[in-house]
Amino acid sequence: MKQLGLSVREDAVGNIFGRWVGSEAELGAVATGSHVDAIPFSGKYDGVVGVLGALEAISVLQRSGFQPKRSLEVIMFTSEEPTRFGISCLGSRLMAGSEELVRSLKRTVDNHNVSFVDAADSAGYKIHPDDLHNVFLNQDAYFAFIELHIEQGPILEKEGIPIGIVTAIAAPASIKVEFEGNGGHAGAVLMPARNDAGLAAAELALAVEKYVLESGSIDTVGTVGILQLHPGAINSIPSKSHLEIDVRDIDEKRRNYVIEKVHKSAIDISKIRGVELSEFKIINQDPPALSDKSVINAMEFAAKQLGLEYKLMISRAYHDSLFMAREYHQWV
Amino acid sequence: MKQLGLSVREDAVGNIFGRWVGSEAELGAVATGSHVDAIPFSGKYDGVVGVLGALEAISVLQRSGFQPKRSLEVIMFTSEEPTRFGISCLGSRLMAGSEELVRSLKRTVDNHNVSFVDAADSAGYKIHPDDLHNVFLNQDAYFAFIELHIEQGPILEKEGIPIGIVTAIAAPASIKVEFEGNGGHAGAVLMPARNDAGLAAAELALAVEKYVLESGSIDTVGTVGILQLHPGAINSIPSKSHLEIDVRDIDEKRRNYVIEKVHKSAIDISKIRGVELSEFKIINQDPPALSDKSVINAMEFAAKQLGLEYKLMISRAYHDSLFMAREYHQWV
Repeated sequence: MKQLGLSVREDAVGNIFGRWVGSEAELGAVATGSHVDAIPFSGKYDGVVGVLGALEAISVLQRSGFQPKRSLEVIMFTSEEPTRFGISCLGSRLMAGSEELVRSLKRTVDNHNVSFVDAADSAGYKIHPDDLHNVFLNQDAYFAFIELHIEQGPILEKEGIPIGIVTAIAAPASIKVEFEGNGGHAGAVLMPARNDAGLAAAELALAVEKYVLESGSIDTVGTVGILQLHPGAINSIPSKSHLEIDVRDIDEKRRNYVIEKVHKSAIDISKIRGVELSEFKIINQDPPALSDKSVINAMEFAAKQLGLEYKLMISRAYHDSLFMAREYHQWV
Repeated sequence: MKQLGLSVREDAVGNIFGRWVGSEAELGAVATGSHVDAIPFSGKYDGVVGVLGALEAISVLQRSGFQPKRSLEVIMFTSEEPTRFGISCLGSRLMAGSEELVRSLKRTVDNHNVSFVDAADSAGYKIHPDDLHNVFLNQDAYFAFIELHIEQGPILEKEGIPIGIVTAIAAPASIKVEFEGNGGHAGAVLMPARNDAGLAAAELALAVEKYVLESGSIDTVGTVGILQLHPGAINSIPSKSHLEIDVRDIDEKRRNYVIEKVHKSAIDISKIRGVELSEFKIINQDPPALSDKSVINAMEFAAKQLGLEYKLMISRAYHDSLFMAREYHQWV
């Protein structure tokens, strides 16, 4: 960013901002960017394209002799992926002013019981919990935000269209569930004496699929991407199971109804199988976001001018944009 | 063992033998022992009791001035638990002369693709695959084998009886299964486009329970103790799942019928869900074992003489005894 002459700052949690100061610097900036962390085996484009794309856009504008009125900014968001602490879009979520996130970050630990603050410390970020409020953005700091991202779905590739212009982002939610039973030896404990936490998890995973399909809507999706058994030995009845569930929809109410049914199902399973439902925690339950019409228009105009085919579409994956949209009117 | 004056030898895979040579050393020995490895969170008695109990028995006999006619031997078996290479009772299975195990050990790897031979090498055992045959025992090496072991089940504790005399060991089998699908982003891939390897695993886990219960016999048990999803992120549809299934019964035929139904179910699930059943491997499928009447009689006689209550019972957990029984007539 410094090579492009941008003035760079980093906030307390590691979001990085590179600003090309405009001739009317007091106006809200136009920003673009994404993240560079990625989930395992997700390919090389997730997030990185939006950061490199932002830098390239700035570079092209500079080479063309363009002089911006509003400041232009590249943002590289920290910790977009929920892999370590189970919190997605940690950087942008905090920028959007989530008091709830500040509270939960003070007590969040990873799977090895390392706290968020200690992990940040080991990575060279000396975070005092009170500093987290400094990450919050002022409402008028940005005029618009745009994020270039791969689709992470099959539609554009299948239809042979190079550009999708996002009109809305589906509303995501994620849930952690734990069942606990007595475990025991796989040979010695007879079937009627068992309360198998693993089978409770298997039933709940299938229930998530069932309730999603029962919604009758193509836009409702639900996934169990994490299912772990403890102690995890072939000759041990699982005494504990841990699931993480992802549910999304463009209709927030319909998504919440699926979550309610999954919760009820978890309670029923625990009663029928005699296991304890020791956790059913909704980690996040975000509303959907709508792109601002003026940004959509600008993108359609640019695509037409360049003769590039495009498709207006819903983003079913969500990105840092979802949280930037909480504070700003114009974005994609 | 050396403190007790026993002559100690160790075989190529780490089984350890301590012999008190009898006055008629040419006769088959009477041996007793167990293992000292244990599965995670299994408590402190599994296996260890049988090794310490054997040493204590020798010590008591020596202090009482007893002079054995047949040699008496303590055996500490290696790798009874199947945790690293998925092969249970590796030591005793090999002692029992399993050519099949010798073949499979040449190509067996752990979850990190480390071969059995390399792992043994790192642990200080320089094993040449041809040495594995040296572990095989001669059929007349032992006259009888006895293993002291905790029940690993609830019966004795519930009934307040201190001693169970085992008349038979249930026939164990273990199976590894893998499903593979296309994976994808949990938000972006709509439900009809999915082939979720995790849900296939959940269905198969529940099918194991169903077919076990359908047997109608209290003696049939089946367990999915291991169920792993890949890549294992909340926002990734599982592209791969791995299950390890344990099925046991005192009736070998009935157990094998359950395995057949589980296999058929795995094939059906893979077809219906459009996932590939990339592995269905029966790791072991052992026959049950019956205790020799003369050893049962000796134990009943001893218990009565000491005024200790006992119960004749089936061992649903299996131990190294199951494999010692393959070669010898008298054992418990």
